Amino acid sequence: MLQDKVLFTLIIGTTDVSLIPGITIAGATPELTMFTPAADAEFLINGRCQVINGVPITPDGIPSPAIISRASLNLTGVPSLVVNGGTRIKPTGIPFIEVGGEPGKDIREGALDKEVMIRMRENAERLGRQLSRGFDTLIIGESIPAGTTTALSTLLALGYKAFGKVSSASPNNPVEIKESVVKQALIDLPEDKIEKLSRVSDPMIITASALAEGFENRVVLAGGTQMTAVAAVIKEFSPGKVKDLSIWTTRWIIEDKRSDIIGLASEVGVKVDVSQLDFSSSKIDGLKAYDKGYVKEGVGAGGLSLLAMKMGFTKEEVMREVEKVYEEARNEKI
Amino acid sequence: MLQDKVLFTLIIGTTDVSLIPGITIAGATPELTMFTPAADAEFLINGRCQVINGVPITPDGIPSPAIISRASLNLTGVPSLVVNGGTRIKPTGIPFIEVGGEPGKDIREGALDKEVMIRMRENAERLGRQLSRGFDTLIIGESIPAGTTTALSTLLALGYKAFGKVSSASPNNPVEIKESVVKQALIDLPEDKIEKLSRVSDPMIITASALAEGFENRVVLAGGTQMTAVAAVIKEFSPGKVKDLSIWTTRWIIEDKRSDIIGLASEVGVKVDVSQLDFSSSKIDGLKAYDKGYVKEGVGAGGLSLLAMKMGFTKEEVMREVEKVYEEARNEKI
Repeated sequence: MLQDKVLFTLIIGTTDVSLIPGITIAGATPELTMFTPAADAEFLINGRCQVINGVPITPDGIPSPAIISRASLNLTGVPSLVVNGGTRIKPTGIPFIEVGGEPGKDIREGALDKEVMIRMRENAERLGRQLSRGFDTLIIGESIPAGTTTALSTLLALGYKAFGKVSSASPNNPVEIKESVVKQALIDLPEDKIEKLSRVSDPMIITASALAEGFENRVVLAGGTQMTAVAAVIKEFSPGKVKDLSIWTTRWIIEDKRSDIIGLASEVGVKVDVSQLDFSSSKIDGLKAYDKGYVKEGVGAGGLSLLAMKMGFTKEEVMREVEKVYEEARNEKI
Repeated sequence: MLQDKVLFTLIIGTTDVSLIPGITIAGATPELTMFTPAADAEFLINGRCQVINGVPITPDGIPSPAIISRASLNLTGVPSLVVNGGTRIKPTGIPFIEVGGEPGKDIREGALDKEVMIRMRENAERLGRQLSRGFDTLIIGESIPAGTTTALSTLLALGYKAFGKVSSASPNNPVEIKESVVKQALIDLPEDKIEKLSRVSDPMIITASALAEGFENRVVLAGGTQMTAVAAVIKEFSPGKVKDLSIWTTRWIIEDKRSDIIGLASEVGVKVDVSQLDFSSSKIDGLKAYDKGYVKEGVGAGGLSLLAMKMGFTKEEVMREVEKVYEEARNEKI
C-alpha cells in the first residue's frame, strides 16, 4: 500500500450525551465539549484552532490526539478532508464537507430523526463512491465527545456483548455513568434497523459507516473501541465489506484493562492492527500522560501514526514530530 | 494527462444580481435562479434533483449543461466534488464542501463582506493544497446565475477592457441591462484589491480563484467568459500561476459574436482550448437549441466534454451519452 493514493477523512460530530456531567474529558467543561471536534479538525488541517484559542486539551491540560494525527500527516504527506457528520459548533477556519447531518440529541430521548439519518447515509455513501475514483485507501478517523457511550449503545442495540468492553479517554473509565445512560436509552427499542440506530447511535458512527460502505477500495477505521461500532453498522447494511476492513489503533487502547477492543473486534469479525506509539521518554508532560492511560486515541491518531511507521518512520521520529507540532502550537498561542 | 488522476470540482454560488429582471435565463423566474446552482450540483452527482423537480431548465425548456457534464463524467469515470462558494439555497441530496462563504448581495450595494471574502479565500486555498496531494489535474467548473455580469464587473474593476466581451446564456445577450448594473457597481471603488473585489465580484469567482491558487498541480478552468475573470483574479494574487492555466470551453462560446473570450483570455494571458461538441443532429429539441446559441456553457460542460474527447470518445459518443442522461432524467420525472 506504500504506492497507493491514501486519503484521510476526519468525521466530526457532537451529541448531547457529552453534556452529561462526568461522562467525558474531551473538553474542559461539558459545554466546551461542543467545541472539541471543530477545534480538532482545525488543528489537524491548520496546526492551529479558530473556534478556540490554543490546542484542544483535557481539563488536566493533556493535548488532543489531533497533534499526533497532524504530525503523522506531516511525515507521510497524506491529504486529509474533514466531514461534518453533525456538530453544534462547526469549524470556521477550514473547509469541510457537509453530508446533510445534524448533531445528535441525548440518546435517552432519541439521537437523530429517522429522515436525517437516511439523508446522512445516502450522502456519505455518495461521497465514498466519488472518493474511491481518486484514492486506493481511505483512512477514517473521528472526533466526537462521549463517543464511547454512543458506541456502547450502538453495539448493544445491534446485539453485541459490549458491556464493560468500550474504552474511555480517562484512565478512570466512568463505566457506571455510561452504562446507566445506555440502559435507559435501550428501553423499548423498535425492531427496524434504521429506526433503532437513529435512536441510539451518533452522527459520527452513521457517517463513517456509510462513507466506508460507499468507498469501493480499501478502508481502514482509525480509532479505538468506537470503530468496532462503526464496523458493526457496516456489517448490518453491507455484510460483504467487513472481511476487508481493518481497525488501526494505538497500543494504549490494546493495553487498556478497562476495555476489550480485541474481544469486540472479534465478535464483529474485523481485523485489528496496532501502532507502537510510545511517549514514555517524551520531554513533554502532556504527552507522557498518554502512557499513563489518558486520552489513548482519537482524531485517527493510532491509524495515522501506524501508517507513518508502515511507510518507514520510526516511533522515535513520529514522537519527535509530535513534539515539534505541540511546541509550534504553544508558541503560536503565546 | 490520460494517466493522470483528474478531479472535477463544481463551484456553486448565487448573488442577488440574478434577481434583476431580464439579466439571466438561468432559472424559470428570477426567484428560481436561487435554486439553479443547487439543482445543477444535485443533477451532476445523482442524475436527479432534490431541491427542484426534474431537470434544471431555462424558461424555454432547455436543459442545464449539467446534463453534458454528467454524461462526460459517466464516460470518463472522473470523480467530482461540489464546493459551495455561497448560495441562498444549498443542496440537500448530495455531499458538498463548505469554505465559509456566503451568497453575494447585489454588486451595486457591495457583494461580500471583506472578512467573509478573506475567510473564503483562505479556506479554498487550503482545500486546493489538500487536493493537490491526491490529484494531478483539477478541473474547475461553475454554476452561478447572472455570473457573466459579475465576471464583467470583476474584469473591469481589475482594469481589463471587458465591455461588450462577456457572453450570455441567452442568444440575445442583455448587454444594456448588464452594463448599466455594472457601471453603477463600479462607482467610487476602493484601491485595495481585496476591498475592491469584495464589492464587485461573486462567491464563485472568489472561491474558484483561491482553490486554483492553492492547488499545486495542473488547473483547468472549465467555463466561458466567466473563467477569464477567475484567471484575472488568480493573476492579481498569484501571477506566477497564470502561464500554466488553461480555459476549456465550448465551441458555442468561441463562435458567439456577442462576446469575445479569445480577446479576454489573451488580455489576461491565459490559454483557451475548445470542445467540438455539436448537437445539431440531436433528436432532442432542447439540445438542438444549444446549436442556436442558447445556454452555450456552464457546470464545466465544455471542459468535461473536451476531456472525454481527449480521452478518445468521439463527439457523437458524447452526444449519445448526453441524450441518454437527458432521457433517463425525464423518465424519472414522470
